[in-house]
Amino acid sequence: GSDGAASAVVRRQDTLTKPQGSLGRLETIAAWLGRWQGRDMPKLDAVKVFVFAGNHGVTAQGVSAYPSEVTVQMVANFAGGGAAINQLARIAGAKLDVIPLDLEHPTGDFTQVPAMDEKAFLAAVSTGYDAVTKDLDLVCFGEMGIGNTTPAAAISTALFGGGAEKWTGRGTGVDDAGLQRKVVAIEAGLKRHADSLSDPLKIAAALGGRELAAIFGATLAARHNNVPVLLDGFVCTAAAAPLARLHPTGLAHTIAAHVSAEAGHRRLLESLGLPPLLDLGMRLGEGSGACLAINIVRSALECHAKMASFAEAGVSEK
Amino acid sequence: GSDGAASAVVRRQDTLTKPQGSLGRLETIAAWLGRWQGRDMPKLDAVKVFVFAGNHGVTAQGVSAYPSEVTVQMVANFAGGGAAINQLARIAGAKLDVIPLDLEHPTGDFTQVPAMDEKAFLAAVSTGYDAVTKDLDLVCFGEMGIGNTTPAAAISTALFGGGAEKWTGRGTGVDDAGLQRKVVAIEAGLKRHADSLSDPLKIAAALGGRELAAIFGATLAARHNNVPVLLDGFVCTAAAAPLARLHPTGLAHTIAAHVSAEAGHRRLLESLGLPPLLDLGMRLGEGSGACLAINIVRSALECHAKMASFAEAGVSEK
Repeated sequence: GSDGAASAVVRRQDTLTKPQGSLGRLETIAAWLGRWQGRDMPKLDAVKVFVFAGNHGVTAQGVSAYPSEVTVQMVANFAGGGAAINQLARIAGAKLDVIPLDLEHPTGDFTQVPAMDEKAFLAAVSTGYDAVTKDLDLVCFGEMGIGNTTPAAAISTALFGGGAEKWTGRGTGVDDAGLQRKVVAIEAGLKRHADSLSDPLKIAAALGGRELAAIFGATLAARHNNVPVLLDGFVCTAAAAPLARLHPTGLAHTIAAHVSAEAGHRRLLESLGLPPLLDLGMRLGEGSGACLAINIVRSALECHAKMASFAEAGVSEK
Repeated sequence: GSDGAASAVVRRQDTLTKPQGSLGRLETIAAWLGRWQGRDMPKLDAVKVFVFAGNHGVTAQGVSAYPSEVTVQMVANFAGGGAAINQLARIAGAKLDVIPLDLEHPTGDFTQVPAMDEKAFLAAVSTGYDAVTKDLDLVCFGEMGIGNTTPAAAISTALFGGGAEKWTGRGTGVDDAGLQRKVVAIEAGLKRHADSLSDPLKIAAALGGRELAAIFGATLAARHNNVPVLLDGFVCTAAAAPLARLHPTGLAHTIAAHVSAEAGHRRLLESLGLPPLLDLGMRLGEGSGACLAINIVRSALECHAKMASFAEAGVSEK
């Protein structure tokens, strides 16, 4: 990140016709854009939402309220323009790119085998990495994958401890018995892969999923390519979380766009030190919460770029 | 409000390709639009931000960090397009209407006399009332008035009790001594106008301000004309609060767009039972927080109106 660009943004903010600091997070967002784009005057011409989709072997354990074929059906719905993310991306002025990852081959059931071997994991990471190009000004990451709050909770438990119950919620809406099956599956997975739990990358491979690995790779590429990131909900945040374990500022170029209603998300954001922008009880995934925050980032930049200074407007200062 | 329209919105929401309720407040916002517009399919073609401006006699008590001439200077800045609200309204696709109220004649200093007599109060209420026409689909109310967090805190104290300190904050940025002067002025005002404190309208006249009275009138007109309202920060909310005292559902057609960093606002929203949409540490006024929430309301409607149903998209249900 560029300290110089961030400082230039703050200096300009303090000349604009408002009490200093009175735009709250809109001011810190402008500085964040400057820092991670490396531009004194940030821009938001090219904004893109990536939705990565994957299928999960752990659904064999009865962890989701919906059947696995819904993943491919929803990918078709994205292509047809009928999903929530289609509407949200359009209204946010963002391009939408849906990237299915080998849907016909679900990951391994992590209660029995690693979700991915090293080759499958790296292939998914690379797909995500290659998606985020230098020409982008801001990206949102989302996911679609029936069953994927279970790998998200498994990764969270492995990274931050406290037991599976602490991180496990109802996802798309499982009942009490389904919730219990999720906890049991995660505990079984942690036991099965106990020798992988000291390495964040091995955790992501053994307990994660292809769409989560792609988000991990895309978040890393964004850092390398000077592209600020809006993270979405629980699954997206858990997917990126190993970066924070690999480097103390590994997620500094990201903002948590929202905190979802999924039980573990608020706790995960607290563990990562990422205060969410929005808290609207959403729990859909698809990048929906991230996409909803794009307009807030645009608003922050618009104020920063186009407000008059006290001197320009002839307004008296304190 | 129309129960029928609200129910029609909920019925449609439950057919769309998402787990029921997973869009959180976006779903309840769609139903709220339906209820108060009285339309099964709400619309947001005509969205307007009103900024009412007034000057305050109580500034003689040293309650603001800025001189009173800033009110008229900022009105000129609004006209010139240089203020935060200009940028926020443009990016939200909303028209901006700035309505100065007799700026050359500040209200009376409420520590000595009523801020407004009945005639002046009703004139300001009427100006606000007449501004909100039936053709509008959504309105935001904001204000500009150096010193106006003091009348806002005075109204809040008079309506909800607990003493002036509970409701008094730093506004545009007064120091400790300034904060103490605000508390002293409010206590003096409450003592001076003790015989008005049982009537919400008399409170608004004796302790309020012209721009607050206009917001009161505009919020009432919105209810009569089927126009949903986004309330802004502390001053705007305090201006509308007497409606909640006059009728238990007097503010049901409003949403608190944000909770500001001004000390009393969170407490005031709790007292009114209005959970805010946004919590971004903003404290600028001008309708800035309300305007930032327009895109969330647009996003809610866009999802509601244009998502495919499970049947249309061929997606399996639970």
